[in-house]
Amino acid sequence: MTRRDTAVVLLSGGLDSCVCLAGVLTRYDAAVLHLDYGQRTQARERAAFDAIADHYGIARRLAVDVSHLKAIGGTSLIDDALPVESGLPVAGGGVPSTYVPFRNGNLLAIAASWAEVIGAQALVIGAVQEDGSGYPDCTEAFYRAFAAAIDAGTRPQTRLEILTPLIHLDKAAIVRRGLELGAPLHLTWSCYVSQERACGRCESCQLRLRGFARAGATDPIPYE
Amino acid sequence: MTRRDTAVVLLSGGLDSCVCLAGVLTRYDAAVLHLDYGQRTQARERAAFDAIADHYGIARRLAVDVSHLKAIGGTSLIDDALPVESGLPVAGGGVPSTYVPFRNGNLLAIAASWAEVIGAQALVIGAVQEDGSGYPDCTEAFYRAFAAAIDAGTRPQTRLEILTPLIHLDKAAIVRRGLELGAPLHLTWSCYVSQERACGRCESCQLRLRGFARAGATDPIPYE
Repeated sequence: MTRRDTAVVLLSGGLDSCVCLAGVLTRYDAAVLHLDYGQRTQARERAAFDAIADHYGIARRLAVDVSHLKAIGGTSLIDDALPVESGLPVAGGGVPSTYVPFRNGNLLAIAASWAEVIGAQALVIGAVQEDGSGYPDCTEAFYRAFAAAIDAGTRPQTRLEILTPLIHLDKAAIVRRGLELGAPLHLTWSCYVSQERACGRCESCQLRLRGFARAGATDPIPYE
Repeated sequence: MTRRDTAVVLLSGGLDSCVCLAGVLTRYDAAVLHLDYGQRTQARERAAFDAIADHYGIARRLAVDVSHLKAIGGTSLIDDALPVESGLPVAGGGVPSTYVPFRNGNLLAIAASWAEVIGAQALVIGAVQEDGSGYPDCTEAFYRAFAAAIDAGTRPQTRLEILTPLIHLDKAAIVRRGLELGAPLHLTWSCYVSQERACGRCESCQLRLRGFARAGATDPIPYE
């Protein structure tokens, strides 16, 4: 039996990263990385992260406090004083107010450090480049550029691929892939607002519910 | 009087970043960013950061706890259980054991987030690419690649240059430049080991002392 390569998988506890992990495990051993960046639903997302990692029996997990992103501010997602924008992505391709500047850049930098220490071969992020979603750090161009920066900024023997298996999927396709893979979607959490029952109204809930509906499936998590 | 551009300057409290800041202030308004990554001399470096910022009357300052880099481990600089390597950079161009994997990648990601929020035009880092120092994230190739990643991963209107004004200077040239600029070198701290009087023996002290000697100057900080 040959030893499998290791992938560091960014696991927020949401639907996308859970489906991402399920797919990765068919080819890699996984080490899972969670980011607490002071968002409203931090405790609930952390619980989802642990539940998903337990489900798959993944021992190598790391949860990182990056609440300095909250101190840096500038977004409604991490600032309790600003209302969370409701509804779907901004028409016209603007950057939505839930944008955390260069969040995925910070996330990938941490992941790259950990990956170099544990000798991983890949970083996996469940980013989705939807038309008009407007997050500049969710584009293929960004991941290509960041992979080049990691290559230039790590030891010569470190070779880290960045994999974005969901980048061109819409939410319905992600739900379908999750169901095919038997991913534990009932353990995931997506709501930006609530922690016990999902609100069903925030941008993230609406995207998720529409994805399940278009996939002809029922979302297994509880809603208000 | 025209409004000057703003530069986010990475200010560790060491000699290099202090000289870097002194030069930047001739052309930019500065916002200073400090990184506490759980190193042995964290409190002393933070005090130096504040003293230098006070000296220049800089109000916009941010100190960020990135002690997760300690949890990620893998280096003697941030792991109390491992001895600090003494002496000068490793012969033969190897990566020294004080290497924190992708540390500058993490630092620049935080700086990019803050710079986008405050509308800065430049990031400035006092990195030095000495022959054989062996830190892959201190090379011009790395900074070019990271600037491209920031460009791809931030808002279209964000234009952030990465400036590395010391990259080709040796320590003696940095000391000379600091003296020419009237930089407050007496407020800086470089020692990896001690917090009251510099040890004079660690890699960082030896580089610093040799720099002052070759510049024909006396280091104003106290040594054991």
